Amino acid sequence: MSGQTAAIIGGGVIGGGWAARFLLMGWDVRVFDPDPEAERKLGAVLDNARRSLPGLSDVALPPEGALTFHDTIPDAVSGAIWIQESVPERLELKREVYRTVQEHCAPDAIIGSSTSGFRPSELQEHAKRPGQILVTHPFNPVYLLPLVELVPSPSTAAETTETAKAILTEIGMYPLHVRAEIDAHIADRFLEAVWREALWLINDGIATTEEIDNAIRYGFGLRWAQMGLFETYRIAGGEAGMRHFIAQFGPALKWPWTKLMDVPDLTDDLITQIADQSDAQSGDYTIRELERMRDDNLVTILRGLKARDAGAGALLNARDRRVEGAVALPDDLSRPIVTVHRAVPLDWTDYNGHMNEARYLQAFGDATDRMMLLIGCDAEYIATGGSFFTAETHIRHLNEVHAGAVIRIETRVLLGEGKKMHLFHRMYEGTRELATGEHMLIHVNLETRRASAPAPHLAEVLAKVAEAHAILPRPDGAGKAVGVKG
Amino acid sequence: MSGQTAAIIGGGVIGGGWAARFLLMGWDVRVFDPDPEAERKLGAVLDNARRSLPGLSDVALPPEGALTFHDTIPDAVSGAIWIQESVPERLELKREVYRTVQEHCAPDAIIGSSTSGFRPSELQEHAKRPGQILVTHPFNPVYLLPLVELVPSPSTAAETTETAKAILTEIGMYPLHVRAEIDAHIADRFLEAVWREALWLINDGIATTEEIDNAIRYGFGLRWAQMGLFETYRIAGGEAGMRHFIAQFGPALKWPWTKLMDVPDLTDDLITQIADQSDAQSGDYTIRELERMRDDNLVTILRGLKARDAGAGALLNARDRRVEGAVALPDDLSRPIVTVHRAVPLDWTDYNGHMNEARYLQAFGDATDRMMLLIGCDAEYIATGGSFFTAETHIRHLNEVHAGAVIRIETRVLLGEGKKMHLFHRMYEGTRELATGEHMLIHVNLETRRASAPAPHLAEVLAKVAEAHAILPRPDGAGKAVGVKG
Repeated sequence: MSGQTAAIIGGGVIGGGWAARFLLMGWDVRVFDPDPEAERKLGAVLDNARRSLPGLSDVALPPEGALTFHDTIPDAVSGAIWIQESVPERLELKREVYRTVQEHCAPDAIIGSSTSGFRPSELQEHAKRPGQILVTHPFNPVYLLPLVELVPSPSTAAETTETAKAILTEIGMYPLHVRAEIDAHIADRFLEAVWREALWLINDGIATTEEIDNAIRYGFGLRWAQMGLFETYRIAGGEAGMRHFIAQFGPALKWPWTKLMDVPDLTDDLITQIADQSDAQSGDYTIRELERMRDDNLVTILRGLKARDAGAGALLNARDRRVEGAVALPDDLSRPIVTVHRAVPLDWTDYNGHMNEARYLQAFGDATDRMMLLIGCDAEYIATGGSFFTAETHIRHLNEVHAGAVIRIETRVLLGEGKKMHLFHRMYEGTRELATGEHMLIHVNLETRRASAPAPHLAEVLAKVAEAHAILPRPDGAGKAVGVKG
Repeated sequence: MSGQTAAIIGGGVIGGGWAARFLLMGWDVRVFDPDPEAERKLGAVLDNARRSLPGLSDVALPPEGALTFHDTIPDAVSGAIWIQESVPERLELKREVYRTVQEHCAPDAIIGSSTSGFRPSELQEHAKRPGQILVTHPFNPVYLLPLVELVPSPSTAAETTETAKAILTEIGMYPLHVRAEIDAHIADRFLEAVWREALWLINDGIATTEEIDNAIRYGFGLRWAQMGLFETYRIAGGEAGMRHFIAQFGPALKWPWTKLMDVPDLTDDLITQIADQSDAQSGDYTIRELERMRDDNLVTILRGLKARDAGAGALLNARDRRVEGAVALPDDLSRPIVTVHRAVPLDWTDYNGHMNEARYLQAFGDATDRMMLLIGCDAEYIATGGSFFTAETHIRHLNEVHAGAVIRIETRVLLGEGKKMHLFHRMYEGTRELATGEHMLIHVNLETRRASAPAPHLAEVLAKVAEAHAILPRPDGAGKAVGVKG
């Protein structure tokens, strides 16, 4: 369906996000926004999208569509089969936009509104063709988050809803069909409740914005990123299940645990409805299976954030640094140096629990990083403009290993001379050898990106280790090509 | 501080999670729980923790502590410096537990309560030593999520709070010091508001449990996992900032966008307070920098979930499969086969935007997987008990590449005979060669985990490709050892 045209009415953060998503999915995009800065602002959103969206997929996206800016709405909507309105939340303004749009757009084009809270019936009032207007409410950043709430009204033809779903799916989104009109649809009811509750906490001096953010991102935010509310609670109910969970926290519904004190009666009917819906949603899995899926997801998210040194991942890094203490070469250099000692994390394993091929290189890369630190190639040194880059790697897989197993990498310096650092890593679980990694690194000038000599103090330490290790027998497999017996 | 002792009063999902965390951090753990099934249930939690927690860290944890079960509270608390109460949410029951605990525990031990909502002053009423009892409210799963709300009362000595913080930090948690007592502390006020709002949506037939979960996990849940509420909104305010965001959605505070209609007045004072707190929290970064941090985090989380085929990641996989269509060998086998064509994702790059060393092997691994699919080694074949395992890998890094660049891998079959499949991958950005990967794979019987012959139809297709590729010149670098010029 790429090669089609979308019109964007209002090109701010949300409209710009829509524009970026359509463009990167191969659509031509025509923008109307009276802001004289609109082109620059939308360009900034598009820059962000270009660096982040294409890599989400494991297959290349189609060639980017054409982006044009237009001075009038009639010009912008010309030829568009999708028109996305993202103007401020003022009902009269939105209706005025639809009036102009509908005078000039194709009668079978979809007009989607990014409104956070207005119901489609409200938007459609006074419209020439009410059925053409739907709520299609996205979430910022629109170019990355898949959710879009799709809300038709009774005036909307089923065919229109289906066409809208197909197009949204095609541009990589998840249209959540909201079956009944309600103020603020679904997600924003939660967001609005939390926002109001948060305003109270600040107003009453209970918590700051940062404390509130930490209360979310170090705890339940991590659960909601992967399962949401009900599946999480189904698991929390444990073996006793969803009914038990609801019953356990039933009395709390009457307590002032939030300012939201207008609560439905927790009738048997409502409890049964929830339990049945939860069974339909998650009943294919046992609680134990759900727990493991949840833990796999949480570990994956936490370790991803650790790699970015962000959110809860930054806490994990701080802890590692505290536990690890100072980094120093061992006094005894007559033996290989232990450069990695850790458990195999869940996110390094496949669905059978075996460590993935690429993670062997990640562990060996960590061992190399550690070796660099030990000889003084640390952040301070790198800031002076030099570092080691890996030129070549040879890995031999000898035995399998599972999540949770403690692995140890012992590192030999085979050569440390001139621009070269030649390392040989051996990975063990206990005494069982799992893999070897032979690596040739070249010292590089970070400005020219070309080979260069390391600083003298670095070269000296490296040579000392290489000399000490030279008395050790040459390891099995070193200097061998693929397919040649070690 | 490992080698210390913790007592766990109530060993359900929450108490069991505490027990697992203390144990895996090297503490001895003494459990009291009258449930005859307690030992089995806690064992199940501990199994989950053992597979997930140790790998979170990049350094090995201390040896696990000793776990014992005790018939009485006095016995369980003997020698404990931390006593964690996780019994049901009944105030009288909790007070009764503290009475017995305080008669037998060390007077300077910490008594932490896992209560979701009671204030510490309520818990301390009638206690022998009120100052000894604190709220330490964790989040399920306790062994993975770092957040613990630490709520002292006016009776709590500052020293007690500091000791509690130090111990919680040492076992890998993040103690959020709640400075004022309030029902349900901080996080559970949000959870309770959302829970009540969700009950209305189900009660009124607006949405099912699954639709609600999807409204969370495909949208704002992903934002909250890494930044929370206010930093996300600061970014949404864009160049205009936090004040603009609050002003923009100020009118909505009066609208029925949630059942939480008891709203504080949005005075200039409150707006200034929020804007100032947000500046203190996030003011070190420009909006553009925050946007990129957010996008890095979101891509990392989304791609992590993609690897697990969970949540929003499962949506991405479904889209890839739709776009990709049927998998088939090209008709023309006289050229190398394109096995990967994709953009470099943000989570494959370091802080300078260069692709990480280990991700080259991930891309080559994907190319190998694709080649396996093309010769018929698909899920159906693997289910019959055979597959190819990588025995050896040789990577040469020739040029650097950045996030967002489109890469292409062309694959040659150098040998496809007997149990062996010898592949040579070349990675390009346009015509620029980035790296080569030479891989020896061995066909394996998945039951014995030993080398075995592939099924005849597989062997036949593989031989056909190898034969066709044999007319191509031997690629540069094939058959070379590390450090030997290609």
